Amino acid sequence: MTLADRVLAGDPRAIARGISLIEDDDPSSAELVRAIFGSTGRAYVIGVTGPPGAGKSTLVDRVVHELRQRRSAHATKLGVLAVDPTSPFSGGAVLGDRLRMQAHAADDGVFIRSMATRGHLGGLARATGDAALVLDAAGCEVIVIETVGVGQDEVDIVRTADVSVVTLVPGTGDEVQALKAGIMEIADIFVINKADREGADRLVAAVEANLALETAAPNAWRPPVLRTTATAGKGVAELVDTIWRFRERSAGAQASRRRSRSEYRLRELVSQRFMDHLERDILAPGELASMVERIAARELDPYSAATDLLRRATR
Amino acid sequence: MTLADRVLAGDPRAIARGISLIEDDDPSSAELVRAIFGSTGRAYVIGVTGPPGAGKSTLVDRVVHELRQRRSAHATKLGVLAVDPTSPFSGGAVLGDRLRMQAHAADDGVFIRSMATRGHLGGLARATGDAALVLDAAGCEVIVIETVGVGQDEVDIVRTADVSVVTLVPGTGDEVQALKAGIMEIADIFVINKADREGADRLVAAVEANLALETAAPNAWRPPVLRTTATAGKGVAELVDTIWRFRERSAGAQASRRRSRSEYRLRELVSQRFMDHLERDILAPGELASMVERIAARELDPYSAATDLLRRATR
Repeated sequence: MTLADRVLAGDPRAIARGISLIEDDDPSSAELVRAIFGSTGRAYVIGVTGPPGAGKSTLVDRVVHELRQRRSAHATKLGVLAVDPTSPFSGGAVLGDRLRMQAHAADDGVFIRSMATRGHLGGLARATGDAALVLDAAGCEVIVIETVGVGQDEVDIVRTADVSVVTLVPGTGDEVQALKAGIMEIADIFVINKADREGADRLVAAVEANLALETAAPNAWRPPVLRTTATAGKGVAELVDTIWRFRERSAGAQASRRRSRSEYRLRELVSQRFMDHLERDILAPGELASMVERIAARELDPYSAATDLLRRATR
Repeated sequence: MTLADRVLAGDPRAIARGISLIEDDDPSSAELVRAIFGSTGRAYVIGVTGPPGAGKSTLVDRVVHELRQRRSAHATKLGVLAVDPTSPFSGGAVLGDRLRMQAHAADDGVFIRSMATRGHLGGLARATGDAALVLDAAGCEVIVIETVGVGQDEVDIVRTADVSVVTLVPGTGDEVQALKAGIMEIADIFVINKADREGADRLVAAVEANLALETAAPNAWRPPVLRTTATAGKGVAELVDTIWRFRERSAGAQASRRRSRSEYRLRELVSQRFMDHLERDILAPGELASMVERIAARELDPYSAATDLLRRATR
């Protein structure tokens, strides 16, 4: 059996192996994705983001637990991808409180994985997308993607999910900062976690006030602002209900998100392939490095260099 | 006079105009960068990053103030770029407490700008890099780049600065989360801001413990862990001293960083140019969209699509 066959059969070791190949950007990972691609598109992808310390891991843990409880109704098989931007430097994911989630690993309906990347430009988003395809092909009906950061790359990842859950936390006195951090406008659902903390009401009010400023079509989905205390499991059932309500309401929007997910992946892939082609087939060994050296020395400007490279490599 | 000439003469309105062209990815911005590029490379670039709510804006404000006080010794002209990842969605930077910093705007030795981008992949890093070139060409001796997020894109921006200052804040009980967020390994200097808060000692200890785990060359720079209370100006002079000490110590490392900054910019530019070429010169109108449609419908996989596009556009 090929690796693709084993992934399609739902073999956990094949899933793990496939995702590792993707993380390593191994050439055989392209073959794998190609082979399984026709069997994907069935999973519902939940993106969870928010600033560090918002309790996202615990929240995801509880959501997974809740979904498993409802398994007959919603999902018999689940995947979790935790995106860790530490990776471009360490080459590996830091586990930390991730270990807590491994409780589900014993539960063979749940596959959990921390995603790392090797520092390629846009590599994290591409690798996460491909890893989600592996889980999808393996029969996961729901995939939760949790991102640790709140930067543009994380926003890009979550934006392509079927539903985006933005998690905020009160009591740091930095509500406005949190709202500024690029995540306000991607939210389908807001979760104020650690809602038992002082300042929760103020944060809910700040988010509501921000939402009120937006002009939306009369029947458009208005992102609800939920309260959870994930450590105690409070509000989690309501969050899952809301996710499902959103799913039912937005079947049309889902198609357009899947198109933008496809476009995003295609663009990234093409950019990466072109750079590989340039370095491998067009330039002499060391030529790119000497070009970079000349740019650093201000003997050559990057725009002229790019024009020259394009001219030599394209038709 | 051309725009480039006016930038080189230090005209604030030309600087603002040049950065706007860069943000808008206007074709003339490439010309501008090309024309000024030979006059850049003199500014010292300070990158400041950290999670939302770490008080970075206030800290940067105070550092700028301190540098201005020492103007004769260090810098007569300064630039500040505040990177706001909100932009891919809103198309504009949220000002918020940024306004506070405009106090320096009256002081004509300081140019302050919030950076936004139009959602291009990698666009924020590229635009920020080019905006820094404009400030550099205009005679800024020091440029401070402050990023709001802690994602991969922000890490990429700060990693290419001459010195990376990572700002953390105690008292959220999330020290470990903050250390996980991809910023640990890029720091040349750690700043524990709001150091009067409870938990500051614990956070300093956690950072020190993490640093102790790293193996470094005997004479290598060991990132110091400083304490500041930016709102009261405490610890700011020491931070500026430490930045300058790092600058003197690491002239060699600086050259290698400038090379990696040049390489990063060249790669981004080439990727973007290739996609533009593909869409404008190779594909029929609507062809990319219909390809994306077929990928979304699982009739075509992205790897085969990318291979096909590369074959058609490259030699």
